[in-house]
Amino acid sequence: MSYGLAIKTDDGLVFASDSRTHGGVDQVSLYSKLHRFEVDEERVFVLLSAGNLSVTQSVVQRLNQERGKSVTRRGLFRSETLFEAAEHVGYVSRKVQNNLLEQNKGKKFEASFILGGQVVGDAPDLFLVYPEGNAIRVPETNPFLQIGERKYGKPILDRFVRADTLLEDAARCALLSLDSTMRSNLAVGPPVDLAVYRRDDLRLAHCVRYESDSPFFMELRESWSATVLQGVRDLPRFDWE
Amino acid sequence: MSYGLAIKTDDGLVFASDSRTHGGVDQVSLYSKLHRFEVDEERVFVLLSAGNLSVTQSVVQRLNQERGKSVTRRGLFRSETLFEAAEHVGYVSRKVQNNLLEQNKGKKFEASFILGGQVVGDAPDLFLVYPEGNAIRVPETNPFLQIGERKYGKPILDRFVRADTLLEDAARCALLSLDSTMRSNLAVGPPVDLAVYRRDDLRLAHCVRYESDSPFFMELRESWSATVLQGVRDLPRFDWE
Repeated sequence: MSYGLAIKTDDGLVFASDSRTHGGVDQVSLYSKLHRFEVDEERVFVLLSAGNLSVTQSVVQRLNQERGKSVTRRGLFRSETLFEAAEHVGYVSRKVQNNLLEQNKGKKFEASFILGGQVVGDAPDLFLVYPEGNAIRVPETNPFLQIGERKYGKPILDRFVRADTLLEDAARCALLSLDSTMRSNLAVGPPVDLAVYRRDDLRLAHCVRYESDSPFFMELRESWSATVLQGVRDLPRFDWE
Repeated sequence: MSYGLAIKTDDGLVFASDSRTHGGVDQVSLYSKLHRFEVDEERVFVLLSAGNLSVTQSVVQRLNQERGKSVTRRGLFRSETLFEAAEHVGYVSRKVQNNLLEQNKGKKFEASFILGGQVVGDAPDLFLVYPEGNAIRVPETNPFLQIGERKYGKPILDRFVRADTLLEDAARCALLSLDSTMRSNLAVGPPVDLAVYRRDDLRLAHCVRYESDSPFFMELRESWSATVLQGVRDLPRFDWE
């Protein structure tokens, strides 16, 4: 299982993902699921992946190989909009999945992606690319997208994330969302990758990795635990109290 | 979809459930999923149900009909322990499900239950009764059980609920867990039923229903939203800030 999420605010984009993969509880490995594609001052993409590892690795590999090549489809490195790039990710993903489907007589190997970033001349944006290859833009009122083990980490995003949320606060909230998920599902695990993109920069502002015992991540968890403990105790009294 | 949960603390038990059921988005109804079985000063049970409505209604009906009857199995009204009562719920549930299974050539109609309460001479306890009819006791370190749409409301319980949590604080936390779930899944909806049992009372201390616009529930939601907003902003700064 994986958990990845991305947030779009007025100031930019935040991406976060766990990095645990497993084929059964006795076969657990670490792989980054946050992939960067950048051409300085021209385009920056972050691709988060979830699902079958061979599919996501194959998709990332194929996308990377398009760099500098003259291809029929414009791909990530020559697309004029993020929308076009997202559709291309869906196209490549379906191609990889369909190959496996044929080789395996109908057995499915699925993957989902979040593609975010900015192409010069276009606005920053986020797209969710479904296993079917189709893509949707991030919603306007609750401007975040999730892939993989979505449910545990959704309430904190629902309550906090808005378009006018400060970019660093959105990044803190993304880490909490991941922490909640890692506590509740062992198949989602550290380290956590975080990337922050400021609108119109055309390069990533920050790309960091936090181990479970990194001082910052521990402080964050402790601070939030204290907030929850006090916050529940401060809720209104029942009428019988 | 349903969401029900129960918490066991040193002081007693808390039960909470939503009351929305639906067979498709255009067929939504209200049914209480919190069922009480009480014999004053002798035994008190609360049964939370999730799953196929015809199964849960049939199980509750059959359990109620055992009251005062001389039956081979001791049932809820003559069991000597909560464990025995929980196994009986599993037995009745399997019977109802198996009948349907036979009539429908293998099509499954499933239901899960949480049974909690106390029989005089036994300690208060909680059991989760699986669709298969088997039952497990509430865990010791994170003393809560959930049925139905469990994931959205789990992180707040993981972070807050311990054996020494005050009973009313546990009840507040249960309402938050429900609120998080109702925000994230439209199929889980108000009103919310809440029951509180104090250890060794052998009758329920409180059994209340909150509509979505009840002043208490609205205050609770507002208080928690304020806590979350401030709490995320108060998290540690990144090293680049």
